[in-house]
Amino acid sequence: MNSEYYEYQLTIDKILDSGSRSFPDREIVYRDIRRYTFRSFANSVKRLANGLRKIGVKRGEKIGVIDWDTDVYMHNYYAIPMIGSVLHTVNIRYPLELIAKTILHAEDKYLIVRDEFMPLIEKAKGIMPVGMKVISYSDSKEKVRSSLDTIDFWELIESNEPLEEETNVNENDMATIFYTSGTTGEPKGVWFNHRKIVLHAISVSLVGARPPLSLTSNDVYMILVPMFHVHAWGYPYVALMAGVKYVLPGKYDYSFILSLMDKEGVTYSAMVPTILYLLLTNPDAPRYLHVFKRWKVTIGGSALPEGLAKKAKELGITVIGGYGLSETCPVLSVGYYNSAIERLDDNTKFMAQITAGAPIPLVQIKIVDPATGKEKETGKIGEIVVRAPWLTQEYYKDPEKTKALWKGGWLHTGDLAYMDQYGYIHIVDREKDAIKSGGEFIPSLLLENAISLHPKVSQVAVVGIKDEKWGERPAAFIVPKEQVSEEEIRQFLLKLADEGKIQKWWIPDRFIFISSMPLTSTNKIDKKVLRDMTQTK
Amino acid sequence: MNSEYYEYQLTIDKILDSGSRSFPDREIVYRDIRRYTFRSFANSVKRLANGLRKIGVKRGEKIGVIDWDTDVYMHNYYAIPMIGSVLHTVNIRYPLELIAKTILHAEDKYLIVRDEFMPLIEKAKGIMPVGMKVISYSDSKEKVRSSLDTIDFWELIESNEPLEEETNVNENDMATIFYTSGTTGEPKGVWFNHRKIVLHAISVSLVGARPPLSLTSNDVYMILVPMFHVHAWGYPYVALMAGVKYVLPGKYDYSFILSLMDKEGVTYSAMVPTILYLLLTNPDAPRYLHVFKRWKVTIGGSALPEGLAKKAKELGITVIGGYGLSETCPVLSVGYYNSAIERLDDNTKFMAQITAGAPIPLVQIKIVDPATGKEKETGKIGEIVVRAPWLTQEYYKDPEKTKALWKGGWLHTGDLAYMDQYGYIHIVDREKDAIKSGGEFIPSLLLENAISLHPKVSQVAVVGIKDEKWGERPAAFIVPKEQVSEEEIRQFLLKLADEGKIQKWWIPDRFIFISSMPLTSTNKIDKKVLRDMTQTK
Repeated sequence: MNSEYYEYQLTIDKILDSGSRSFPDREIVYRDIRRYTFRSFANSVKRLANGLRKIGVKRGEKIGVIDWDTDVYMHNYYAIPMIGSVLHTVNIRYPLELIAKTILHAEDKYLIVRDEFMPLIEKAKGIMPVGMKVISYSDSKEKVRSSLDTIDFWELIESNEPLEEETNVNENDMATIFYTSGTTGEPKGVWFNHRKIVLHAISVSLVGARPPLSLTSNDVYMILVPMFHVHAWGYPYVALMAGVKYVLPGKYDYSFILSLMDKEGVTYSAMVPTILYLLLTNPDAPRYLHVFKRWKVTIGGSALPEGLAKKAKELGITVIGGYGLSETCPVLSVGYYNSAIERLDDNTKFMAQITAGAPIPLVQIKIVDPATGKEKETGKIGEIVVRAPWLTQEYYKDPEKTKALWKGGWLHTGDLAYMDQYGYIHIVDREKDAIKSGGEFIPSLLLENAISLHPKVSQVAVVGIKDEKWGERPAAFIVPKEQVSEEEIRQFLLKLADEGKIQKWWIPDRFIFISSMPLTSTNKIDKKVLRDMTQTK
Repeated sequence: MNSEYYEYQLTIDKILDSGSRSFPDREIVYRDIRRYTFRSFANSVKRLANGLRKIGVKRGEKIGVIDWDTDVYMHNYYAIPMIGSVLHTVNIRYPLELIAKTILHAEDKYLIVRDEFMPLIEKAKGIMPVGMKVISYSDSKEKVRSSLDTIDFWELIESNEPLEEETNVNENDMATIFYTSGTTGEPKGVWFNHRKIVLHAISVSLVGARPPLSLTSNDVYMILVPMFHVHAWGYPYVALMAGVKYVLPGKYDYSFILSLMDKEGVTYSAMVPTILYLLLTNPDAPRYLHVFKRWKVTIGGSALPEGLAKKAKELGITVIGGYGLSETCPVLSVGYYNSAIERLDDNTKFMAQITAGAPIPLVQIKIVDPATGKEKETGKIGEIVVRAPWLTQEYYKDPEKTKALWKGGWLHTGDLAYMDQYGYIHIVDREKDAIKSGGEFIPSLLLENAISLHPKVSQVAVVGIKDEKWGERPAAFIVPKEQVSEEEIRQFLLKLADEGKIQKWWIPDRFIFISSMPLTSTNKIDKKVLRDMTQTK
């Protein structure tokens, strides 16, 4: 072996290098506050990397970030892993004690905090890791006043030259860590190395070019997945890999988001269904119909209700579904057109594109019997198990939970689904949300989908409630668009049952009308809260 | 570490799996002889893989292939590496002795041979590796008659079930090997592991989606780079990664190729400039103007002469340049629109897209002083050095030559170029083709480009001839389109010199008119033969 051969590592700095060399003039925009070109961004990131090293950050040390979707966060996505330290994207929607718990569990040595979160950190001082240093910043670049001893973030960038030397980071080094609780349970840590993040970014970039999204380097992305949430689905990395303009909305304010989309020419976004719902029902929405017409959207995190998808389509939005977990980096499948459907009629294509999608390049998905592990036939419900180059290796410091995740060389998602004749995945339930009635499963997502088709229904969620006779029976929580009676909904569902679209025995026993859905920290509908509500009513 | 975690390997079988699951109905077409869907192709490849194992092929053993661009070759691209053995793509344009030499050097244990090459192999029996087994096939699927003991290729597919078990191939295992001589010298072996081939395929797929090619999964590829030549630029793998229909032309017959392009709806090809020239000047070409209008082409292997590029553009062909070497898998850069040029005028964009291009994702290119290794400024000529995840690690069994290839962690290409203000690479010369006159370099490619702009010039190549006074002076070999005098060309060049487009002292001392260019085994113009011609004239 020749010693001067360069063993190329798939590290995150390569994405920054590749993007900023090929698309030097492409912009990164933070609200109406700051703009960068990829070239100036790369320079700024390298200054920060150097600054972090100067204050003593070492390889393997973890740095928590507490922030909205800002240009500062975007810097941290690159600068922290680039020097071999680890980006901990702290879930700011957790209660304070849980935030402290994740920071302790991750053993963060540093915390980078936006000024408005400083009071929170000051309050939690006593339950944070001993010796942890705080780096703070404000949008105005003025030094943040605090009772704590803090380092100024902007100073790290402005008083340092760009890091040019090679850092010898290995592609198998830990790059990111964050905590996920799903909709129930204690937070579990998942972590990813550089290689996984790079391969995920390149595969997500590649699949974006396929119809119906057909994204190119001329698209403009504004991602509405919080940056603390599963790498914002990888898009801060995809942006530089795909060479697209990237717009950061800061703290989500839906009226402002609509005006920013208009002003910056946004053509593509990704989000959970709730956010799409909130944007489309925003009072300002009617003024942005021209923006919707050019807009392409990927929906993930929860199933895309057919009713919402149709509403979006009517507005001219190209909307597709997608699927993934915190444990899977996250993207596994999206609703691109595969060869089985591309020449079929528009309705068939539409119904396929709003499913959980088909596997993206390099992902292997099987639907198996949860008991035996045997692969299910087309159309039969089973558990989704996966292989991909970017799945978490373990729950951090939790070998017990890891055992349930990785069985027989496949990651077990705990989601129930079937694969249709065209190769698209239809999620019918999270295993833990499943409703078992008279010994048989009622697929709550299919039922929700059916109810969402009623013109007077705005949002719906179905949960199981205890029943003496059947074990469990479904209850439907509905946010109505306008006045609607239980009887109207029931008649509507009976009609769908007559048409063979649902089973008659799935029709919920109870319909509960509420004014808005309780949400989890990642804006998914919180079924745990709904289930609790059925106990007390 | 949990033992049931699956350490995903970037192996070639993953491309086959991903492509055939996402695009099961997409076609692979071999002339008018056989068609496959990706699904049936994957099944057939897995049968072959099983068949090869049954006859005793072992991990690490090399299998040479002697064939045109056929469906059989396409099988071999996948089945051979899938079981951990190594695909040796034998250069069939070499003289027989050299073919035998490369087979001996690679230590091939098996040879897969198309019937029409069998007489060659029978003749060379005495100089082949002892004990090497021959597998032969004919298009008609009839058993090939031979004086040698041969195994029937089709039998291996038809009498075996698809291989389903996991083969435990590692991504760092050798997958392919082939020999390259450049335009001079002894063949050197270069080899690539699975990981390199997978990463190359995904990056080439990704860059194809960028303007001006803007390829999608609905494009139809027919690659006119022989499959023995640097993985046919990676396209047999890219096809399944990108999910595109793939048309194989067999032995190149330009009239037939035009009709096949028409019949199969070909929209994209890649080739060396000579092939584009031969297609456009084919007597049948005028009947296929409608095909050219939808056609997108990447030109590599040699610089794309501006005259040829303009001719192609007039016909409605979208043509871009590209750059790479046998040692680099091969693609390093292509003429996509980066952010610096995409909003500029059409002519600027066109002139950028027909250069050697800009780096594709994950490739790092520097132009350095060959003596000091220091990076050159924009516009200054130096040697191209590169890093990418898919470069050969060494010349096979040749540590001496490897030393010159890898210096200081960068692969040295031996090509002289400059980077323009927009980030595009302009190759001015191969180091070994450089003409040094009065102590200064005359960039032969720039000079060839200038001469190619003359309306009566069809093809041109400039070489250095010995000169007592200047050391070397340029001589131009020209294939004329119609009668043209030396004086006409000289006046044309003087005008370009007046306009500052070339230097006056570059104008060749001699113009030699010939009826066709001598070509190398990979259809590049053979400057070595031209140089020899100047000695004898």
